[in-house]
Amino acid sequence: MHQKSLIGILGGMGPTATVDFLSKVISATKADVDQEHIPLIVHDVPQIPDRSSAIENGRDDPFLPMLAGIRLLDAAGVEFIAIPCNTAHYWHGRLQRGCRAKILHIADAVAHYVTQMAERPRTIAVMATRGTISGGIYSQRLLEGAEQVLVPDEGTQLLIDRAITGVKANQISAARKAATEAAGLLADAGADCLLLACTELPVALSDFDHGPLIMDATEALARACVRASVGEARMETVG
Amino acid sequence: MHQKSLIGILGGMGPTATVDFLSKVISATKADVDQEHIPLIVHDVPQIPDRSSAIENGRDDPFLPMLAGIRLLDAAGVEFIAIPCNTAHYWHGRLQRGCRAKILHIADAVAHYVTQMAERPRTIAVMATRGTISGGIYSQRLLEGAEQVLVPDEGTQLLIDRAITGVKANQISAARKAATEAAGLLADAGADCLLLACTELPVALSDFDHGPLIMDATEALARACVRASVGEARMETVG
Repeated sequence: MHQKSLIGILGGMGPTATVDFLSKVISATKADVDQEHIPLIVHDVPQIPDRSSAIENGRDDPFLPMLAGIRLLDAAGVEFIAIPCNTAHYWHGRLQRGCRAKILHIADAVAHYVTQMAERPRTIAVMATRGTISGGIYSQRLLEGAEQVLVPDEGTQLLIDRAITGVKANQISAARKAATEAAGLLADAGADCLLLACTELPVALSDFDHGPLIMDATEALARACVRASVGEARMETVG
Repeated sequence: MHQKSLIGILGGMGPTATVDFLSKVISATKADVDQEHIPLIVHDVPQIPDRSSAIENGRDDPFLPMLAGIRLLDAAGVEFIAIPCNTAHYWHGRLQRGCRAKILHIADAVAHYVTQMAERPRTIAVMATRGTISGGIYSQRLLEGAEQVLVPDEGTQLLIDRAITGVKANQISAARKAATEAAGLLADAGADCLLLACTELPVALSDFDHGPLIMDATEALARACVRASVGEARMETVG
């Protein structure tokens, strides 16, 4: 049997986003039977304090609970770790210093995705938590791939906030309404590509298929996991 | 914050069934924010040899890889373990002897579900792998709740086999067709309730809503997890 690297997932941020991420890992894998899928250990403990408000208010309380999860995965023998929560990547460097396994970076996964696009987007709008935006998790890496990065104005950001908290509370239809309205405003502001840079947003925009191109950071990270575990040849092609 | 027990999941059998199970755990939990969801460690390693063919052919090779997963969860400090694979419960007793955590039994979860039904079913048809049926994982416990248990004939079982392998290969529409045809044959044979006793089957029958009542063993096990972690009061009501 083809050798597969064991991947650790620091999940639970939030639980629905973790489920969406796991199903994207399955879709990205070429497999006919259970045994061909990639092996994962998932730390799905949602008691980690809110990451976005911590960044906004200068608190550090998510760090130690995340490090505890990372160390549990490391002790289980994983070779790579993925964190399906964009905002949590604010702590990526410090978490990496606390473990032996390599922690994939979601913005690197997105940057890889952009370099593989037939036609590069001109203006990418970042749909994310306030913490992801003020923490600068994407800005520099995205500017290398697109001409312009668009940050939502306050009214649009309020809609994005509502979509994210809606998914976390399992109120999917309210979340869908807010996310769709925000996407429309960003298209009107000139974005030809929307980066879903919060793992709750693909859940809220799963039916969105008009206007700007959707780039899903969750899917980019899922594909990076499969690539790390089994290599490019055992991946499903995009589409 | 309300205290929650850490739950271990021995998943990966198969990966899609694990994702379906995790989303049913989320749906069964009353929660408005991430932190109110129940904490899980998921051993999602699909390299465990096929359980059904092992039972059919008198092999024991799934046992040690499952025990390794159970021990990893035990070492991580989980209080309860759930196994979202009906067939794997053939080894339930031996796995339980290998760990400190209590392993919930999926047939107990289903039996609890039946006792809470307003009107008990008369004839329950068991839709499962051949291993689950020949291993007798359900028969005794179900006979305590229903007048009659119906085991599919060979033609119907072939359709059920096809539905299960279809989900494992991520060929959902072919799986849906086979499962729907099998469900129709069991209704014709007099079943007023179909027990989906293989965790792949709810994925294939998610849109089925006519004829006999559907009883989903995955959902019963998900509810048992939430009950074990936070108690009845923090559960969503059925519906």
